[in-house]
Amino acid sequence: MKNTLFKGVIAYPITPFDENEKVNIPLFRKLTERLVTSGSHAIAPLGSTGVLPYLSDEEKEAVTEATIQQVAGRVPTLVGVSNLTTEKTVYHAQFAEKSGATAVMIIPMSYWKLTDDEIVEHYDAVASKISIPIMAYNNPATSGVDMSPALLKRLLEIPNVTMIKESTGDVQRMHYLRKELGEEVAFYNGSNPLALAAFSAGANGWCTAAPNLIPELNVELYNAIQNNDLESAQQLFYQQLDLLKFIVAKGLPRAIKAGLHILGEDGGTLRSPLKPLTEAETEELRLILFRIQTPVTTAEKAL
Amino acid sequence: MKNTLFKGVIAYPITPFDENEKVNIPLFRKLTERLVTSGSHAIAPLGSTGVLPYLSDEEKEAVTEATIQQVAGRVPTLVGVSNLTTEKTVYHAQFAEKSGATAVMIIPMSYWKLTDDEIVEHYDAVASKISIPIMAYNNPATSGVDMSPALLKRLLEIPNVTMIKESTGDVQRMHYLRKELGEEVAFYNGSNPLALAAFSAGANGWCTAAPNLIPELNVELYNAIQNNDLESAQQLFYQQLDLLKFIVAKGLPRAIKAGLHILGEDGGTLRSPLKPLTEAETEELRLILFRIQTPVTTAEKAL
Amino acid sequence: MKNTLFKGVIAYPITPFDENEKVNIPLFRKLTERLVTSGSHAIAPLGSTGVLPYLSDEEKEAVTEATIQQVAGRVPTLVGVSNLTTEKTVYHAQFAEKSGATAVMIIPMSYWKLTDDEIVEHYDAVASKISIPIMAYNNPATSGVDMSPALLKRLLEIPNVTMIKESTGDVQRMHYLRKELGEEVAFYNGSNPLALAAFSAGANGWCTAAPNLIPELNVELYNAIQNNDLESAQQLFYQQLDLLKFIVAKGLPRAIKAGLHILGEDGGTLRSPLKPLTEAETEELRLILFRIQTPVTTAEKAL
Amino acid sequence: MKNTLFKGVIAYPITPFDENEKVNIPLFRKLTERLVTSGSHAIAPLGSTGVLPYLSDEEKEAVTEATIQQVAGRVPTLVGVSNLTTEKTVYHAQFAEKSGATAVMIIPMSYWKLTDDEIVEHYDAVASKISIPIMAYNNPATSGVDMSPALLKRLLEIPNVTMIKESTGDVQRMHYLRKELGEEVAFYNGSNPLALAAFSAGANGWCTAAPNLIPELNVELYNAIQNNDLESAQQLFYQQLDLLKFIVAKGLPRAIKAGLHILGEDGGTLRSPLKPLTEAETEELRLILFRIQTPVTTAEKAL
Repeated sequence: MKNTLFKGVIAYPITPFDENEKVNIPLFRKLTERLVTSGSHAIAPLGSTGVLPYLSDEEKEAVTEATIQQVAGRVPTLVGVSNLTTEKTVYHAQFAEKSGATAVMIIPMSYWKLTDDEIVEHYDAVASKISIPIMAYNNPATSGVDMSPALLKRLLEIPNVTMIKESTGDVQRMHYLRKELGEEVAFYNGSNPLALAAFSAGANGWCTAAPNLIPELNVELYNAIQNNDLESAQQLFYQQLDLLKFIVAKGLPRAIKAGLHILGEDGGTLRSPLKPLTEAETEELRLILFRIQTPVTTAEKAL
Repeated sequence: MKNTLFKGVIAYPITPFDENEKVNIPLFRKLTERLVTSGSHAIAPLGSTGVLPYLSDEEKEAVTEATIQQVAGRVPTLVGVSNLTTEKTVYHAQFAEKSGATAVMIIPMSYWKLTDDEIVEHYDAVASKISIPIMAYNNPATSGVDMSPALLKRLLEIPNVTMIKESTGDVQRMHYLRKELGEEVAFYNGSNPLALAAFSAGANGWCTAAPNLIPELNVELYNAIQNNDLESAQQLFYQQLDLLKFIVAKGLPRAIKAGLHILGEDGGTLRSPLKPLTEAETEELRLILFRIQTPVTTAEKAL
Repeated sequence: MKNTLFKGVIAYPITPFDENEKVNIPLFRKLTERLVTSGSHAIAPLGSTGVLPYLSDEEKEAVTEATIQQVAGRVPTLVGVSNLTTEKTVYHAQFAEKSGATAVMIIPMSYWKLTDDEIVEHYDAVASKISIPIMAYNNPATSGVDMSPALLKRLLEIPNVTMIKESTGDVQRMHYLRKELGEEVAFYNGSNPLALAAFSAGANGWCTAAPNLIPELNVELYNAIQNNDLESAQQLFYQQLDLLKFIVAKGLPRAIKAGLHILGEDGGTLRSPLKPLTEAETEELRLILFRIQTPVTTAEKAL
Repeated sequence: MKNTLFKGVIAYPITPFDENEKVNIPLFRKLTERLVTSGSHAIAPLGSTGVLPYLSDEEKEAVTEATIQQVAGRVPTLVGVSNLTTEKTVYHAQFAEKSGATAVMIIPMSYWKLTDDEIVEHYDAVASKISIPIMAYNNPATSGVDMSPALLKRLLEIPNVTMIKESTGDVQRMHYLRKELGEEVAFYNGSNPLALAAFSAGANGWCTAAPNLIPELNVELYNAIQNNDLESAQQLFYQQLDLLKFIVAKGLPRAIKAGLHILGEDGGTLRSPLKPLTEAETEELRLILFRIQTPVTTAEKAL
């Protein structure tokens, strides 16, 4: 395999804001510490969960540095550096490397749908300016571009593009990647409700914000797969599926923040136009978390 | 579980035609026999693979009787009886029961998109006229109707609707069925490329035409799942995936007939407007079958 | 233009059933007569509106003969003869020609998605057996096949395939047909809510069930277009748009039957599994028809 | 009508870059001047054509000021001020008002799909900070959000949200807007290939980059509609349709820049990752422009 630095549960911290909608770095460090100590196998700041596109350049830099200082080498770090222009993407990728990131993640953000050649040139331009590995990220729902397996193959020819993250939510895409790209390419699942199917299909890791709320269940699912114990994996998956679906349906930053509050943790505020969950949604989340934490028979008696 | 008669590999025979495009019953019996003796756990004639909608009433009856006589109780039989009108569906369901079918499969065929109430009344009308179990089949690609989980729940309230077959190709639908309908409802996967993901999600069986060509691999995949051996299941799945994708992409009746010929078996002709695979497509299939049957190193030397 | 027999408003009668769900031919003749005398420019039995796929061969023949006898040459007739198999399509096309139909309409019905070559061979086989013109009909929502403009071009090379009916509901398809197929090819719009846009784009005619309920408005819209009076056409279109959208949304056979009853006409019953509109839907239709028939100010006072 | 400041052809200038990918303001002013003098009825900088999301705050401000100075009140100006965060959107809207813009255009850009309430709050927050009118812009292909007609209705309750621009490319959406929002609401078409259908449906204006290349044809189409001359409008539309489809298919900034060069005008460079059209694409565009400018018989002789 080209790259085995990342495997298992790759946890995405949110970026918390204060009451003036400014980034709250001390709180970010605290939330990141929780992810490390609760067993996540890697930390990935400035992803969709971390509302990367809503941040200024200075804020991105502060979050990058805070992550690396807080993690302090205990697990690898994967920093999101995606930007609409090539110039800015190079800038942030270089900053991440200089700050000590293990790798960077790049999604080809696009307002104008990019051609395959433009996407290859974009990755190539960034890759040539850094020496740490790049995870190429395909998520048409947020980027507007669906990178074909053929295109991903071209990207993997760039020496330091060594990992693929897939978030189309279609397990057959995972099958295709494994068959077409070969077993030596590390691919990662970014679709929470697909966690079981993706691991069954051979995914190396699971990129997820869920460890902010249920780290044990996430890690146990991965362990069951590692132990070739499908029955346990299936049971663990169905135990957490309602939560995985909820956080995706409501938007990760909103749902994680609300979940942290339910768990007695401070998740800060959101930056407008993003707003908190409604009261009804929050109640739904509270019930889902309650059911997960309570053995079934007890939960049924209590309700 | 409400119904455990069907599990594992549920094999779909093609309906072969002679040179005048008439149904060839002796050949049909021979092909059905192959499916039984090669280990399939059930036989399902008059499905999409069996080109049900292209047959006259008399032909459907002949195929039904031939199946039941040939199978002779060795495995259960699941006869397709779907029709556009309720009256005809009742007629064929009664015929199947009288002939000795274990169960019938019904997809709500529709030219005019049916409302949920119309679909419930349709199943109810048929169910009240027979006493064998019904498998409700959801396949929007062929029926034009995508039955929601809520609708499937309503159908399951009809006493002899006991099984659900899902062919949307979306594994998350399987998760939903398992979570919402409960573990006691038997659900079956009808999407070949989803075989591994669906079994991982807890599907009771796999409805497939693939045993016409690669019965051992299909059965071994199911056995690996039964043995809680995900690693072997994954390996077996990837070994057969190219074939599974090919037969779906090219249309099951066309692809199975071509594959039988490659394997030295007579698959008969097709009924117009369906035509055989092109020569290039046949070559592609030959290569896929060759690769499956040959240990990798030998295959690589030979090519 | 290759064919100018059909233009303007091409009216689709429903096929009415009696209380035992048998086709009611005398009532069908009465409904057809209404369409002719209220100004429709052609009559098209056995379309989707006429629930063609729900009828037996004998019923199709009876409807064909009843249409031609009742219309008696006052306007041209366009008989639907589509069938899943080529053999049956040839049979019904020949029957229509023998009975005196002006032309036949054929949609490539498909359970198994047909290849382009299969579709061309299908039309070719039918066309070679009759000498009246064929209208090729593209409607992916009901047939499951979306014939590309390139395929339609191939079909038009068959001498008696002279007309194209488009029901994708995408006006840009009309533009493409006009640009790519040339002005000499007659194309027809089968999407009711697209009536204005399609005529603006140059469609020769409008295939519609609406004349069963609002024949004057349908014909006046066509006349305004003929008079190059866009302002009037726009006003007439918006006057009838709610009805056009309603009958499409609810299914033409259900909606037309309900509308006839509201207008004091007998529309017969439907064949199961199709059921009548609900009471609430019927009330909605009653209100739409009331608003159309009443000058706006009067209607507003009345409500 | 709530707002009649904008009607007819609303022209979108590109934002040209120099060889170092810096914004070239003198060239931008020259291109804007061309749009005004060739008859466009309004100028709309910083739209998708103007690659708004690829520009820094300072660049957006420079383009805003250059537009207003160059146009100098000859026609109204409509400045794009969309941004992911509410704070930045307010900032740029205020800057545009202060600079003298007639109105601003706002699309609810979203990385995280916004809820209806978040979108209303976003527009409300901006609207309350400025006193010039706002055009709300719906374009799911670029924003990731498809604002329902019900949501648009809510936005129109905000006093200075007075105009709707629709770019879904579905003419039936235009019908809905006209029927549901009432004749007093001004709606604008942003889909080039829908120009004829949208005007036929009553659109007040056409937001388009095409006047950079074929201003006369664009204005003549609008004039034909104003003269209630559908036949001429249809002819003029088909004359320019190939170009309209080409510039949309290839991406407006790329296609306009290439077209300007073909016409002997300087369009500057693009900002990475956007790259110029390929040579083959440029040749295709050259042919399309040649055919438009040459009477048909001459063109046919020349080719």
